[in-house]
Amino acid sequence: MTSLASTTNHQIRLARRPVGVPVRADWSFTAEPVAPPERGGVVVKTLLLSLDPAMRGWMNEGKSYIAPVAIDEVMRAGGIGVVVASESAKFAIGDHVSGALGVQEYASFGERQLGRGELVGIDLRVGSPTQWLNVLGMPGMTGYFGLMDVGQPKPGETVVVSGAAGAVGQTVGQLARIKGCRAVGIAGGPAKCEWVVKELGFDACIDYKAGPVKDGLKAHCPKGVDIYFDNVGGEILDAVLTRLNRHARIIICGAISQYNNTEPVRGPANYLSLLVNRARMEGIVVFDYAERFPQAIAEMAAYLKDGRMKSREDVVAGIDTFPETLLKLFRGENFGKLVLQVAQA
Amino acid sequence: MTSLASTTNHQIRLARRPVGVPVRADWSFTAEPVAPPERGGVVVKTLLLSLDPAMRGWMNEGKSYIAPVAIDEVMRAGGIGVVVASESAKFAIGDHVSGALGVQEYASFGERQLGRGELVGIDLRVGSPTQWLNVLGMPGMTGYFGLMDVGQPKPGETVVVSGAAGAVGQTVGQLARIKGCRAVGIAGGPAKCEWVVKELGFDACIDYKAGPVKDGLKAHCPKGVDIYFDNVGGEILDAVLTRLNRHARIIICGAISQYNNTEPVRGPANYLSLLVNRARMEGIVVFDYAERFPQAIAEMAAYLKDGRMKSREDVVAGIDTFPETLLKLFRGENFGKLVLQVAQA
Repeated sequence: MTSLASTTNHQIRLARRPVGVPVRADWSFTAEPVAPPERGGVVVKTLLLSLDPAMRGWMNEGKSYIAPVAIDEVMRAGGIGVVVASESAKFAIGDHVSGALGVQEYASFGERQLGRGELVGIDLRVGSPTQWLNVLGMPGMTGYFGLMDVGQPKPGETVVVSGAAGAVGQTVGQLARIKGCRAVGIAGGPAKCEWVVKELGFDACIDYKAGPVKDGLKAHCPKGVDIYFDNVGGEILDAVLTRLNRHARIIICGAISQYNNTEPVRGPANYLSLLVNRARMEGIVVFDYAERFPQAIAEMAAYLKDGRMKSREDVVAGIDTFPETLLKLFRGENFGKLVLQVAQA
Repeated sequence: MTSLASTTNHQIRLARRPVGVPVRADWSFTAEPVAPPERGGVVVKTLLLSLDPAMRGWMNEGKSYIAPVAIDEVMRAGGIGVVVASESAKFAIGDHVSGALGVQEYASFGERQLGRGELVGIDLRVGSPTQWLNVLGMPGMTGYFGLMDVGQPKPGETVVVSGAAGAVGQTVGQLARIKGCRAVGIAGGPAKCEWVVKELGFDACIDYKAGPVKDGLKAHCPKGVDIYFDNVGGEILDAVLTRLNRHARIIICGAISQYNNTEPVRGPANYLSLLVNRARMEGIVVFDYAERFPQAIAEMAAYLKDGRMKSREDVVAGIDTFPETLLKLFRGENFGKLVLQVAQA
C-alpha cells in the first residue's frame, strides 16, 4: 500500500451559486492531505472526470431530480479512477472503478457507500477508460434508455437528435441506425456535421449555425420526424416541433441552450404541435434505469466490438482547468464527450 | 313531407381570417332557399349548435388536425337537429341526429356522407339534446378518452383540470372522482368554483382570478399533481408544471388562453419539469377514438342515470348572435357547455 499521508488532494469546490455562465470566482480551490481509507472503505485516485451539461443544474439551488451541490462542497462529478488504498474486500489496489468521484484528485468511499454500490468496477477489456465515461457510461446509458424506452423506435422511423456530436447525441444517432431508423443529427459547424455523417454513419446532419434548422429538417426528414431526442431546448426544439409526425415522441434529456439563462427559460412556443399530432414530450433521468445498466452496457460493448458503434472523446488535461473546460460545453466547443484528465492511468 | 321550397336557410359564413379576437366583420350572413334532399340523402333542421374553443383554430389557415374552414364556407359546427326531409332508408322524418351541421338553419347530407357515418341518430331517452352536445357529445368524449387513455388515472391520484366549469372540464373532474381520484378544478370566479365543488363534487376548485394558481395548487394538491388535463395553456399550465409528481401526465387538450393571440403562443417556460419529474405531456384529438364512442357514451349515460355525472349547459338563443356568443368562450363567460339554440325542438 502506497503511503498516502504525504499526498495532497487538490479539490475544486462550489464557492457560490453562479448567475448565468459560471465564472472562476464561483469556485474555490482547496488542498488537503489524503486520509487513509475508512474501515471497510477505499481511496480512489481520480484519472478522468466526466464533464456534463447537467452539472450546471446541480449548481443551482432548488428541488430537482438530484440535490444541489452545497456551497463549499466538492463539485459533484462522475469519473474513472484507480483504487490506491483499500480496507474493503470488494476492491483491491489497482482496480479501475467508476463513480461520483467529484472534482478532486482523490476520493474516499466508506463501507456504507460501497454497500450502496456507489462505486462499480470497470473492465478495461470491454472499453477504454474514456469509453467508460462515454458510450459505456452515463451519456451512453442516457441515450440508450431515452431512445429505447421513452422513444420506442420502430424500423423505418426518422430519429432526430440535437447535440449530435456530443456524448449523448452520438450514441442516440448510432443506436437509431442500428435499430433500423433514419438518423438525422443537429450539430454546430461543418466539422462536427461531417464527422457525424462520415464517421458515425448518420444519414444526415443539420448545421444549426449555417441556416434555419427548419429548412434542414425539411430537406433531411422528407417523411417528417417520428422521434426527437432533445439535448438543447430553445429555438431548435421549436423548429423540430413544426415537423412532427402523428404520434411522434420527443425525449426531453436536456436544454443546454437554456442552462445559463439569467432570464426565464424559453418555453417551446410550438408545443401545441403535440395536440395537432397526438404527440408526446417526455423527460428522462438516467438514474431510474440503474438496474438495467449491465444489460445495456453489454449490448453497447458488443456494438463497440463489432464496429457498429464508435465513440469520440474530447479530453482536456489538468484539474485546474476545470472552470474553463466546463464552459466548452455551453459554447458548443467540445467535439465528442468532454472529459477532464486529472491524472495519467 | 313538409314543403321546404319556400323555406329560407340562414347561414353564417367565414368572410375572412380573423386576426386576434374574431369580430363581426369576419363573418358574412347569407340566406338561400332550402333545397330538397339529394337522392339517398336527408335535410336536417338545426336545433342546437355546439360552440367550442377549437372553432377558433379552424378559422386559421394552415395545417392542423382538421382542414381549416375555407373563406365563404359555412362555418363548421357540430350540432343536434331533426330530420325534416329524407330520401334515405337510414333516417326518417322526425329522427333526432347529431353531426357537423354548420352554423346554418338547415343542413343537407348526401348518400355518400351518410354512408361515411357523418350523421348519427341520437336517443333522447338516453340524454337530452343539450347533453348530447355535452357529456354524451364531443366534449364528453374528449374528456373521457383524454383522461382514461392518455392520462391513465389510478385510484388515489390527484387530477387537476383547467376550464373546470366548461364542457370538457366538468366531465374530466367528475370522471376522475368516479375513478377514485382526487379532483381539483381551476375556474374563473367564485360562482363557477362553488358549482364545481358543491354540485359536481370536485374535491376543490381554484379560482384563478382570485390569486396565484400556484398557491391554490399548494393548498389543494398536498400530494402534488399526477394528472393535469389542460384546456387553457399559458400561465396556468406553467403554474401546474411546478407541482408535478414523478411520472405525471399532462393531457394537452387545448390552450384557450392563446387562441386569439396576435403574438406568438407563449410556450410553457417550466417544461423542464417534465425532465426532473420524468413526466409526460401528450396531445389528444377526440376524432381518433370515434370507433370507441358508443362504448364510452354507454358508460357516461349510465353515470348520468345514476346521478354520478351531472352536466350543465349555457344555452344562448338565436343564430344571429353566433359571432358574439362564440366570444363568451374566450372571455370565460360561459358557465357550462356553451350551446347556441337555433330553433325550438
